[in-house]
Amino acid sequence: MNLRDFNWSPEEKKIAKVTFDKAYQKEMKEIKNELLKRLENLADLQNIWSIHNYLTEKRKEVDKKYDYRYSVLILVFVRLLSEGYIEEKDLEGFSEDKLEAIRVLSGKSA
Amino acid sequence: MNLRDFNWSPEEKKIAKVTFDKAYQKEMKEIKNELLKRLENLADLQNIWSIHNYLTEKRKEVDKKYDYRYSVLILVFVRLLSEGYIEEKDLEGFSEDKLEAIRVLSGKSA
Repeated sequence: MNLRDFNWSPEEKKIAKVTFDKAYQKEMKEIKNELLKRLENLADLQNIWSIHNYLTEKRKEVDKKYDYRYSVLILVFVRLLSEGYIEEKDLEGFSEDKLEAIRVLSGKSA
Repeated sequence: MNLRDFNWSPEEKKIAKVTFDKAYQKEMKEIKNELLKRLENLADLQNIWSIHNYLTEKRKEVDKKYDYRYSVLILVFVRLLSEGYIEEKDLEGFSEDKLEAIRVLSGKSA
C-alpha cells in the first residue's frame, strides 16, 4: 500500500493533530532550553553568533520536519518516534494498517 | 579635508582600538541581555523564530557597523557616539582635526 493512499478518519485526524502538536511543543521547548543554556554559559560575547547559527539550523530543520500533509504524515511520525518526540502510545487509535506501516518503517516490526 | 586622508599615530591607533572594542562589547552585551529577556518572557514557543529574526537583523547591523578600516573609522565613531556606545572622553588623545571632524559630523560643533 502506498503511504499516500491511507484514509484518515476524523478520529485519527484528531489523534494525529494532538500528537503532532505535542511533539512540536516538546522540540521547541528543547530549543528554548538549549538557547538559555548557551546564553548562560557564554564565555565570549562574540559567540552569540554561533548561537545564531544554531538557531538558523534548528529553524530549517523544524520547518522541514513538521509537515502536516496527510500524504507524508506517516513518515513524520516515524521520524518523531525515532527521535523520541513521541511514543507509540501517542498513536493509539490509528488503524492497524497505519500502525503496521509505522512499525515497519521504524524497524520495529516483529 | 577628506576623512580618508587622516593620519593615525600609533598612540591614536591604540585609543581607537580600545574605544572600538569597548563599544563592541557593550553592544554585544546589550544583545545578550535582550535575548535573555525575550527568552524569559516567551509566552508562545513559536515566538522563538521572532527571536531568531531579531538576531539575524542585529548580526547584519553589527557586522556592517563595526568596520575597522581607518578610512571609515571617523564615521564609525560618529555613529557610536550618537548611539551612546562611546562617550567623547573615550576619544581623548585624538588629534584636534579628528575631534573637530567628529564634532561637526555629530552636529556638536559650536
